[in-house]
Amino acid sequence: MAANSFGTLFKLTTFGESHGAAIGGILEGCPARLHLDIEKIQLELDRRKPGQSGITTQRKESDTVRFLSGIFEGKTLGTPIGFVIENEDQRSVDYDHLKEVYRPGHADEVWEKKFGIRDYRGGGRSSARETAARVVGGAIAKQFIEQAGLKLQAYVSSVKDIELKSDHASLDLSGIDKNIVRCPDQEVAQQMIALIEKVKAEGDSVGGVITCVCSGIPFGIGEPVFDKLNAVLAHAMLSINATKGFVIDDGFDVTQRFGSENNTIPSGISGGIANGNDIVFKVAFKPVSTISKAQKTQNTRGEEVIMEATGRHDPCVLPRAVPIVEAMAALVFADMLLLQKTSVI
Amino acid sequence: MAANSFGTLFKLTTFGESHGAAIGGILEGCPARLHLDIEKIQLELDRRKPGQSGITTQRKESDTVRFLSGIFEGKTLGTPIGFVIENEDQRSVDYDHLKEVYRPGHADEVWEKKFGIRDYRGGGRSSARETAARVVGGAIAKQFIEQAGLKLQAYVSSVKDIELKSDHASLDLSGIDKNIVRCPDQEVAQQMIALIEKVKAEGDSVGGVITCVCSGIPFGIGEPVFDKLNAVLAHAMLSINATKGFVIDDGFDVTQRFGSENNTIPSGISGGIANGNDIVFKVAFKPVSTISKAQKTQNTRGEEVIMEATGRHDPCVLPRAVPIVEAMAALVFADMLLLQKTSVI
Amino acid sequence: MAANSFGTLFKLTTFGESHGAAIGGILEGCPARLHLDIEKIQLELDRRKPGQSGITTQRKESDTVRFLSGIFEGKTLGTPIGFVIENEDQRSVDYDHLKEVYRPGHADEVWEKKFGIRDYRGGGRSSARETAARVVGGAIAKQFIEQAGLKLQAYVSSVKDIELKSDHASLDLSGIDKNIVRCPDQEVAQQMIALIEKVKAEGDSVGGVITCVCSGIPFGIGEPVFDKLNAVLAHAMLSINATKGFVIDDGFDVTQRFGSENNTIPSGISGGIANGNDIVFKVAFKPVSTISKAQKTQNTRGEEVIMEATGRHDPCVLPRAVPIVEAMAALVFADMLLLQKTSVI
Amino acid sequence: MAANSFGTLFKLTTFGESHGAAIGGILEGCPARLHLDIEKIQLELDRRKPGQSGITTQRKESDTVRFLSGIFEGKTLGTPIGFVIENEDQRSVDYDHLKEVYRPGHADEVWEKKFGIRDYRGGGRSSARETAARVVGGAIAKQFIEQAGLKLQAYVSSVKDIELKSDHASLDLSGIDKNIVRCPDQEVAQQMIALIEKVKAEGDSVGGVITCVCSGIPFGIGEPVFDKLNAVLAHAMLSINATKGFVIDDGFDVTQRFGSENNTIPSGISGGIANGNDIVFKVAFKPVSTISKAQKTQNTRGEEVIMEATGRHDPCVLPRAVPIVEAMAALVFADMLLLQKTSVI
Repeated sequence: MAANSFGTLFKLTTFGESHGAAIGGILEGCPARLHLDIEKIQLELDRRKPGQSGITTQRKESDTVRFLSGIFEGKTLGTPIGFVIENEDQRSVDYDHLKEVYRPGHADEVWEKKFGIRDYRGGGRSSARETAARVVGGAIAKQFIEQAGLKLQAYVSSVKDIELKSDHASLDLSGIDKNIVRCPDQEVAQQMIALIEKVKAEGDSVGGVITCVCSGIPFGIGEPVFDKLNAVLAHAMLSINATKGFVIDDGFDVTQRFGSENNTIPSGISGGIANGNDIVFKVAFKPVSTISKAQKTQNTRGEEVIMEATGRHDPCVLPRAVPIVEAMAALVFADMLLLQKTSVI
Repeated sequence: MAANSFGTLFKLTTFGESHGAAIGGILEGCPARLHLDIEKIQLELDRRKPGQSGITTQRKESDTVRFLSGIFEGKTLGTPIGFVIENEDQRSVDYDHLKEVYRPGHADEVWEKKFGIRDYRGGGRSSARETAARVVGGAIAKQFIEQAGLKLQAYVSSVKDIELKSDHASLDLSGIDKNIVRCPDQEVAQQMIALIEKVKAEGDSVGGVITCVCSGIPFGIGEPVFDKLNAVLAHAMLSINATKGFVIDDGFDVTQRFGSENNTIPSGISGGIANGNDIVFKVAFKPVSTISKAQKTQNTRGEEVIMEATGRHDPCVLPRAVPIVEAMAALVFADMLLLQKTSVI
Repeated sequence: MAANSFGTLFKLTTFGESHGAAIGGILEGCPARLHLDIEKIQLELDRRKPGQSGITTQRKESDTVRFLSGIFEGKTLGTPIGFVIENEDQRSVDYDHLKEVYRPGHADEVWEKKFGIRDYRGGGRSSARETAARVVGGAIAKQFIEQAGLKLQAYVSSVKDIELKSDHASLDLSGIDKNIVRCPDQEVAQQMIALIEKVKAEGDSVGGVITCVCSGIPFGIGEPVFDKLNAVLAHAMLSINATKGFVIDDGFDVTQRFGSENNTIPSGISGGIANGNDIVFKVAFKPVSTISKAQKTQNTRGEEVIMEATGRHDPCVLPRAVPIVEAMAALVFADMLLLQKTSVI
Repeated sequence: MAANSFGTLFKLTTFGESHGAAIGGILEGCPARLHLDIEKIQLELDRRKPGQSGITTQRKESDTVRFLSGIFEGKTLGTPIGFVIENEDQRSVDYDHLKEVYRPGHADEVWEKKFGIRDYRGGGRSSARETAARVVGGAIAKQFIEQAGLKLQAYVSSVKDIELKSDHASLDLSGIDKNIVRCPDQEVAQQMIALIEKVKAEGDSVGGVITCVCSGIPFGIGEPVFDKLNAVLAHAMLSINATKGFVIDDGFDVTQRFGSENNTIPSGISGGIANGNDIVFKVAFKPVSTISKAQKTQNTRGEEVIMEATGRHDPCVLPRAVPIVEAMAALVFADMLLLQKTSVI
């Protein structure tokens, strides 16, 4: 059973392959009577959609969400919110050449061996296209947590070796969406964009780091011992395609301190529970596997073959991953807010 | 609802506070007819127990597990395995001085505010004592996955700035338990031990990194899209006390490569699914908060007070955390093995 | 959180209100490589759909299912199967007169008080329209369990006081769909139809009993102690609209026997586990609440008002409930088959 | 995976075989700061325990519960409540004669075939002894729901053909525990007792019906579409050993009415949601399978053998099942109360 649900009470279940008819999902547990701004949800989808700028893939998808249930006269009904996003770009193309090749760095082979079958027309269920459904669910979660005072702001803090060194507290986070790479420092952003353009021209790809700042977190949320806030955030982030690491606070740097020193440095989480301070976490993304450069790979008969992708790939997924990181974090916080309602008599 | 269960089918639920009568758990879903070596389970507990060497806390707990159900004539029955470990060390002591103080770096305050009540005699449910129950469940999981050919070996790869630089493939992992710090390189181990002894003498603490090598993993396990193998491992690891970060493969270092380069480097997981290669992950532990040095903290009335711990603390938790990391990883793999049984008709 | 999922591994989640844009669902956990006969799924929907005969409501819905994912080249992919059924009949009507009235015997009032909001245009989420999504999920479950040799046959065994007295073993179950009331005895069926037509003419309604015969059940399925086969079947059946009782084997009649007598009578379930014999259960349906006759009820201000339904209601839901009973039973058995795969090493 | 948990948020997990070391459980999700009366919990266990009167089995178990965690200074901590009940009666007996015989009407054979192994010393996990753990969890649930104003009262309403015909509303329910059969009508109780004594003398057994009256139910609890209050109650009741049927309100009798008639009769549940009225449900129990009379059965080699039980069995389980029915109902209502806390913003 592949796991397609996330959350205990505020729960998103998604469906859909990249080259099937549509993707979509069901969001359960969103409390009734929440005013929903549908336009804002679409805006989050637009931040994720392909073709939004010169440094993303030119694949064309309008990514328009259609809500089918759970919303009435602008408010949530307390019933499951069903929604669908049609797949538009891939009809009528010939995919036979992909039937017998496993793309390097992709999940084609493992997926086929796990299930004994795969939709060879593309990444299928393993494609990051699925995350569009997460952005819809997360955008609703955001509206729910925002009215509890909680705010999430993610940004690109490094692209390969170009790093935004400033601490989040010294940054003007309102600048995140003022450039196409989604880095709040406009100068560093230009360097990142230049690098990505260069990489794109070379038919290669690069990875980087996304930082997420969470503020206004209600004291006490988080569910130890197994669903500590940091543990569930780590689960959420590592479930996003192409991620390789998650750190909270100063992460691995914290191992370089003495306890007497570290105890004086504020953290946002104590024992898995929010303590009222801001929570800052970072997620590492590998360079995407699809590149235009010729690469060696294997076909389904185990023979070595040379593969060249046709070019409509993201040279760097980070700008488009920012809303996905926020969406997954929002789903975590929304669930934790609901669970906390049942903690005390 | 605090979350005290881990796993979908192979599921461990734990209970117990550090200063209550006992801790323990229920392990569900372990398939019937598994031969269990009870001594091996106790050995894992012994690797975690306090007082095992000069560099761990001297708190005394025999940590003997008593099995109450689910095992018959040396084999699992397919029924839940109930077990108990009595708490021995803390009876008849006067804890009143702790009633009104929040220990720095601990979860005392958040726990009290989350639930409006706490067992002030110690860390209560937030104490790492709870992880003894995980080690029992994990030790059974280990025996289950080992007969499927899967092997887990965790070791201490750094203590503060003393780092084992060699790659896991070049190490003799049979040396892990040949020293008290559980580092497979005997020379580096001696440096780590010396550092911990120095830190202990100063009444301070240090953190570090544990690396875990997983081999013999059946092709195809892992449950995308939300329960990717890496995502659930991250969840498992970050649910352990004092952890701050999780990386798979080369983690954040992967962001420094081009895609064309990275595609040629083997990884153990593709799209969240095991691909037959070894999986290597790392977990960062902060220096433990309890130290003997005098520290400023707050009491329950919000006033600043000076606190000195009585001395029976771990200067470095990493040696004792090695079996905990293995236990949680074993629980993840056991669950994934079971889930995979239902994937194909 | 209203619960919209059913099943542990083979899991159906549904969405949709009766007067929203569409209803639908996501079916997770169906093993990969199952050949699916899509026409057969539509046939089950046709057995449930309104307007299929003179004794059902004349509300018009084509109830055509559109699959969006999880199926490729006629086989399941192992990924979630998303599907949608558009709502067609209720657009452009004026529902304002329903805004302030609670229909007698319906859930209008409790639903509004539970959530503080409701879709007043009809039953909303409490409408039996939602069960169309169950029939889709159940029709896939049926194809899965049938290839394991399991067969389900439900039929109407009583309508008010007209009762089919023969035991299931003496009946020709191939006759179930040979009449519009779905009773395998053609003579009794005619009596039932005559009664329903009379009741319809009077603007009233009647209830009755559906019997379900399950054969070819693999020995050993069922998950005690809480998910005994009978317990989960009871849950499944009582989750269907208008149901009031569930019995297995001889139900309440068994209380009239001595143990020495009862021990000699074969049953299909022992201790919650299938023992290889046929399982027979019965479900009681109340007469539907919506009738054309004038009835007293309350409006949202608590005042008594007289209400007359417009006439497009089912005088007896049982003929249309037969495929729903089968669908829910199929979901139970499919889940139990998967769970059993993980019982023994 | 045998299912050993019940509930979504207020969740009981049990463990234990009848002839193992102990039985017990973990109760999760009970809100913090609930005052617990431990004596009251023990009293509920005493109502269930063997040997309590001349009409129950004379097997000796003190059934004393020991709490291990989750309670501090008389209040719940919000952490899991671990508890254990030692098994006392079965040590040092020779069970070899049972190794190769399947007792008639019991789950010995199915259990052995499901798991390929069983604890042949008794019913093992299929024994009703497991329900003692449910009574502990249910007794805590009772204290939780009682302070929300909810009250549960179950009683024996029939033993074989001796039936208490009066409606619950006309009965003095304070009389339930004034006789050993737990029937509120003292005269009918005496007839039931006389019948059970006669049956006991003959080495046979009888079944009957338990009715449960639930009052003070908060408007709005219940979680459609799949976890309707009636559906989850049915699941709970049919998970109790020896049950064969469940009805709500008038059950199968409701099928004898016209809709116009039935709409005027108040019910306690509308569309799966509590509507403020009392809820009344009934559960059918078969005569217990263990009897002293000689019976034909099979051994593990499939040969027919004659079996005579040694006599320490219940001639009628209903008096002891009354607290079990209440316990399971209390668990359902406690869970529903918590879930309802998250319904509206």
